[in-house]
Order: sequence, then structure tokens, then C-alpha cells
Amino acid sequence: MHKQKDRILLGHGSGGKLTHSLISDLFVKYFSNTALNQQTDSAILDLEADNIAFTTDSFVVDPLFFPGGDIGKLAICGTINDIAVSGATPLFLSSSFIIEEGFPMEHLEKIVKSMSAEAKYARIQIVTGDTKVVNKGKCDKIFITTTGIGKLAKKHKDISSGLKIKIGDKLLINGSIGDHGMAVMSARNELNLKASIDSDCASLNHLIDIALQVSDKIRFMRDATRGGLGTVLAELAKNRNYGIMIEETSLIIKENVKSICELLGFDPLYVANEGKVLMVVGKEDADKVLNALKKHEKGKNSSIIGEIVDQYYGKSWITTSIGGKRIIDMLAGEQLPRIC
Amino acid sequence: MHKQKDRILLGHGSGGKLTHSLISDLFVKYFSNTALNQQTDSAILDLEADNIAFTTDSFVVDPLFFPGGDIGKLAICGTINDIAVSGATPLFLSSSFIIEEGFPMEHLEKIVKSMSAEAKYARIQIVTGDTKVVNKGKCDKIFITTTGIGKLAKKHKDISSGLKIKIGDKLLINGSIGDHGMAVMSARNELNLKASIDSDCASLNHLIDIALQVSDKIRFMRDATRGGLGTVLAELAKNRNYGIMIEETSLIIKENVKSICELLGFDPLYVANEGKVLMVVGKEDADKVLNALKKHEKGKNSSIIGEIVDQYYGKSWITTSIGGKRIIDMLAGEQLPRIC
Repeated sequence: MHKQKDRILLGHGSGGKLTHSLISDLFVKYFSNTALNQQTDSAILDLEADNIAFTTDSFVVDPLFFPGGDIGKLAICGTINDIAVSGATPLFLSSSFIIEEGFPMEHLEKIVKSMSAEAKYARIQIVTGDTKVVNKGKCDKIFITTTGIGKLAKKHKDISSGLKIKIGDKLLINGSIGDHGMAVMSARNELNLKASIDSDCASLNHLIDIALQVSDKIRFMRDATRGGLGTVLAELAKNRNYGIMIEETSLIIKENVKSICELLGFDPLYVANEGKVLMVVGKEDADKVLNALKKHEKGKNSSIIGEIVDQYYGKSWITTSIGGKRIIDMLAGEQLPRIC
Repeated sequence: MHKQKDRILLGHGSGGKLTHSLISDLFVKYFSNTALNQQTDSAILDLEADNIAFTTDSFVVDPLFFPGGDIGKLAICGTINDIAVSGATPLFLSSSFIIEEGFPMEHLEKIVKSMSAEAKYARIQIVTGDTKVVNKGKCDKIFITTTGIGKLAKKHKDISSGLKIKIGDKLLINGSIGDHGMAVMSARNELNLKASIDSDCASLNHLIDIALQVSDKIRFMRDATRGGLGTVLAELAKNRNYGIMIEETSLIIKENVKSICELLGFDPLYVANEGKVLMVVGKEDADKVLNALKKHEKGKNSSIIGEIVDQYYGKSWITTSIGGKRIIDMLAGEQLPRIC
């Protein structure tokens, strides 16, 4: 009947025959696992956990494909990282698709394959999902919402709230900043760059595991996504009895990221990352954690970027390369829409 | 700075100051609970469960507000019902919003209030969430994705797969069919009806609890949403060593639902419900379950609508009021887009 077998039709979201074939031919094919394959409305999961971490994110990135990743990989990494930084082991993800009528089936398959590959790397399962199709023009190509569950040890440490942070603690990050945001911006604007910028989009759960294994003095972790490292630092100091001091010279900003930031007028400190975690570590363990991170492929360029100080209460400051000092505030408006 | 404090701006999705004020002034205000109020990227939850049910759904209903509900209520009920029909107790929900720039803040607040009220009724907590804002014209007003976690007893029965169904079992439903789909259609088309049609949109977890308490012979449950009761019946029989026989005269279809179905050319059997659960119950317990359902506000009009038969293997049949018989097949295409 339909000549457009290569396009998403409204019927793919109807709950009828086309929905079923989409589930079997695409989602079950690539995400295959016991829970998903049951094809019941709820996945039934073996968990045996006293405490869990639970997180959700919607992804609306534009363009869908960019150097270093795509919306599918991003949707997996983003949710995994939110769980991992809480100290939990990510186990199960759900994935819900809102798709514009007419979206090429080939692109959907590419996205789903990419999700599947990233799920394998991170060792998590995509166990349940949903698909809605809206009329042409009612959404922009495809949006994906992933929700994740991670398992926490019964006696887990609080590394999310920041309440455990002490004066003298060191701040570490696992590499360069601003890569993801500028990769998306350069792809969106089809900028002609000498060297293309790759997004740092990555699942960090294995890297984070290593850090938690070598030290029991990890006091805080957060992945620096929307709003960049600057926003995380501003939030982290807010209302606290400590200040944060960052050395600009210790931050790694790739040359091409720096150029495009200058060109477009962005401060790399506020540009989104998708594979960077900020860790606050007791000073006695900082070098040990740094060395462990450096041995992992996702942490090769890790560095200590600053420390928790007994002054500037409630504020984050950065010492600039020319010797000055400026405050790191939160972003007031939208810097870059649809970066994730 | 902004004159448009009453509208959603791109900055509300930036992860910066505006995002934070949206979270505090709206989400934390209405959804308030210990886990959410921490405002960490992952909610940390006390669960103590061996097994859980995990489900997700995106809601793109158009219009957002309709008699008997709105997109917010629907997003809570839909996810709760998917968990409840698996036999689990729904506990925690996440909620992710994709919002079009310029969306009225007043409408968002109305939706969030409605979610909060339904969450209270169902006794679940909304513990984590996300907000993305896309440029005007890049999505249609607002989409909501809810994901839920329910707790299952260690030795829970399988009531999702249909594998426990036996010949002779009775089929029950907790009231009239087609209400939700036709409520949305009449609201969308601004039809001038004598009596308005209310959506049946409801959280069924308390009702389902009652059924599971009075009988250990509940063999299967599913909420009949997209694709309607017809799709559930067609799926339930598919590839099985039994058939299903439904009596058309036992189905309740409200007069105004019937009229609008005739007017628009829909078969009520395939029209979406959002507060209806199909149960398959051992025949010896069917009356007991029926009576228990009838005592609950969401089950007053429950009835036995058919049985599992030792013929028509793999097929569902319906005997029509004029004595004929027709097969119930799955929907081939999209009947009603954006009904949920």
C-alpha cells in the first residue's frame, strides 16, 4: 500500500501493526535483551537493590549527526553519566522517541544502531520504550527521552549534594572543555574549519568506577553538560561556607574550540561538554585519582584545575593567564539552544 | 530585562539561571518531595526491591486540554497504569518536558498542577525531571515524557505476558470504551455536541490493587490505550492455542461516543481509552472480581465482556448485536494521531 516504506508514517505511532513492526524490526533487533524482548508495557527487572539512582533527560540536539556522535549516542551517554556521577552503577535505560512524520527510516536506524553500540560499551540494557509520531512540521525531526536506573550500594556515599566538600579539596576534570558545544555549533553552521571539532560525547561510568575504586575521598562529582563547567562551579559554591579557585592555565581548551568560541563569541567555560566530569577529591588522594584517571582512555588528559578555599565564600573565582581574577557566575539566559 | 515573564523562553532550557528558577518556582513547588528537592541530576531512592517494573511513555496529545483531563494528567495516569497492569505498585515517576519557546507560563503551571493532583491521588512521587526548550515552530506547544518505577513482590505472578491464560477464563473491563479518543477528537474539532464527552483518563492502580487482593486467579491485565480494546484483544489471541469471544452487547459505549464515532467514521473498539483495564480472570473468580471492581469509583460500570474459548485459535471474534460475528484484527495504520 505505502510506497514510503523508507519513511516514518503516522501509523508507526498508532499502537497498531506498523508500531509492532517498528518494534520488532528495529528496536528489538538492535537493543535485544530478555526484558525488552517480552514486549510488555512495563519491563520487569531483576534488581535486588535497597537504593537506586533514577534520572531522565530529553534530547533535542540539532543537527542530529555531528562529528563524534549523534542524538542517539548522546541520549545514552547523557543519562548514563547522570547516574554514574551519583555513585550508582547504571543498569537499565528506557528510551522514548517522538518522531516527525516523514523522517527517513535510514536515519532512525542509524540512530538506533548508535544507541545500541553505546549501550554495549557502557554495559547497560535498553529495556523498554515508546514511539510517538506527530504530523509533519509538529516537531523537528526526532526527539529522544532516555531515563535510567542505577544501583547504589546500601551504604553509599553522598557524592551528589556537595555537602561533603572540605576546604583544601582539589578539583579535577578528565580533559578539555567546550568540545561538545562547539562540535554541534560547527556542524550546525557548516563552518569551514581547518580541523573538524569532535564532540567529547562519552559514557563515563567505567572511568568513574575507577576513581571510586582507588579513593574513598571523592567528595563530589558532576558531569559538566548544559551551561558548561562554569555553571557547575557556580552552583557548587552557591550558599556554601567555602570558595572555589580555578587556575585558567590548568584548563585544556583545544585550539579549534578556542578559535570557534572567539569567532562566535562564546566563553568556553560555559560551553556544553558531554564526556567531562568534575570531581572534588580530598587533597591527600588527588594525585592518586589523577593518575588512575589518566590511565583510562576517557581520562588521558585529566588535570587538577583548582581547589576549595577558605575565602570567597559562596563564589567561584578563576585566575586568568595574565594574572587577573574574575568571578564565575551562572549563565543568565540561553547560550546555545538545542546543544543536547 | 525580559518583558515576557509569562512565556517560556529558550533560556528556561539552558541549564542556567532561568532553568533553576523554573525548577524552584514550579516543579519543586508542585511536586515537592525529599528526593526531588535535592535537585541533583539523579534522584536517590529508597526502594528495597528485588524486582521492579519500569516503563516509559511520551505524550503529544493535541489539544493539551480536553474535557476530563489534560496532557499532564494523562502523562501521570498513562505511566501509572502501565506499571499497575504488570502487578507492581507504582512508586516513583520522572517527568521530562520539551517545550516550544513562547509557550504560556500559565498553561505550563496548569499542567504541572494537574500532574501534582493526579500524583497525589495515585500516591506516587515525581522525583526527577528535565526541561528542554526548542525554538518557536520546532515542536507543537509541549510534549511530556514520563517514566515510572513500580515495586514487585519477590514472588510476583506473571500477569503481563498472557501465558497464564486458560480456556474458560472470563474477560472483564471496568466500564465504557472509546471515551478518551472521542473526548480528544471532539475537543480538537470543536464539535458542537449536545453533551460533552469526558475522557476516562484515570490512574487505575488502586482499582487494580483491589482486584489482585480479592483473587489470585487474575491471569492477565492490560490497559486498553492506543489502538483501543480491539488491539489488545487481537494481540492477546495472536499465536496462542486459544481464541477469544466477545459479546458486543456486553460492551458499554456511551451514546455521545457512539454518535461521534458514527459521524467521524471510527469503530469504538479501536478508539483509545485512558482509564480502562482489560482483565482475564479464572471463571470461578470472575463474579467475585466483578463485584469488587463495581464497588470502586473507577469500576462502577465494570462488566464481563467475553471468554477464552477452545476454538478460533489465535483469533479474537466478536458476536454482534444482530447475531452476526466478525473477527477483531489489529489496526493497520494510524486511526487517530496524537490522541495521547
